[in-house]
Amino acid sequence: MKHTLSVSFQNRYNAIPRITGLFSGRGFEIESISFGRGEQPGLTRMTITTRGDDETIEQITKQLHKLVDVTRVVDLTHEPFIERELALIKVSATHSTRSEIMHLATIFQGKIVDISPRSLTIEITGKEDKIDAALRMVHPFGLIEVARTGSVALKREFPTKK
Amino acid sequence: MKHTLSVSFQNRYNAIPRITGLFSGRGFEIESISFGRGEQPGLTRMTITTRGDDETIEQITKQLHKLVDVTRVVDLTHEPFIERELALIKVSATHSTRSEIMHLATIFQGKIVDISPRSLTIEITGKEDKIDAALRMVHPFGLIEVARTGSVALKREFPTKK
Repeated sequence: MKHTLSVSFQNRYNAIPRITGLFSGRGFEIESISFGRGEQPGLTRMTITTRGDDETIEQITKQLHKLVDVTRVVDLTHEPFIERELALIKVSATHSTRSEIMHLATIFQGKIVDISPRSLTIEITGKEDKIDAALRMVHPFGLIEVARTGSVALKREFPTKK
Repeated sequence: MKHTLSVSFQNRYNAIPRITGLFSGRGFEIESISFGRGEQPGLTRMTITTRGDDETIEQITKQLHKLVDVTRVVDLTHEPFIERELALIKVSATHSTRSEIMHLATIFQGKIVDISPRSLTIEITGKEDKIDAALRMVHPFGLIEVARTGSVALKREFPTKK
């Protein structure tokens, strides 16, 4: 099953290869990684998604805790959390298809962020499955390039029923 | 200066530690990494931002090209590109501050994605400096948690004058 881990760490020499190496070393594919600057200076917060059974993920979590640069690891998988990613999608567009693509973008609450005589670039945010759905819808027009951030996640304050 | 690299690679065993290790090995701090699934099955597209002089970044780019898993490296720094990141910002909010924070969120075209009696969670997208500005504005209310994706970037189709 899919796991979403939030890893806070000091972004120092070799911290990132060490953290990501723990997954590779156990044969786990990292599906996505996202991080920018953290809320505290020097502290970076990375969201990693991977697939595996609970037991092995727990082992990885323990190993992550042992790394000197890592200050906190939270497996959000079994609690309610908000998850978002962003995608920039550049799709072929001509005068005859442009308005249809723009309509599709509106349905997914996307924004047009670049336009040329042969293309449109759409910014979309949402959960992974929403981005996947948007990509499937614009795919027939011809995808030129896609850049996805991968998910970031925060725990919900008030757990909601599923 | 800040460099934005787009690295396409086969997300196989140890590819991520190898790619990120090239930066650490030269003493470069990776400021942000973002990737989700790529537009082609098996191919992942990672956006990395780092700081350094052009010459050393060029050396890293050459080294990246030599990695078997890496299929393409583009340094977007010197061409016009669209850059976006997403942030989830959980900020303290009481009945007396909530409406002010929601107004601020509106100014930054943010969306409220979670609410509790003591907090608000805002989703904001934009360039790094816009996210920074939004964080500075809500900081006095009390930041609880922040998760940033780091930038993703695509080349603009029609170069614009700077």
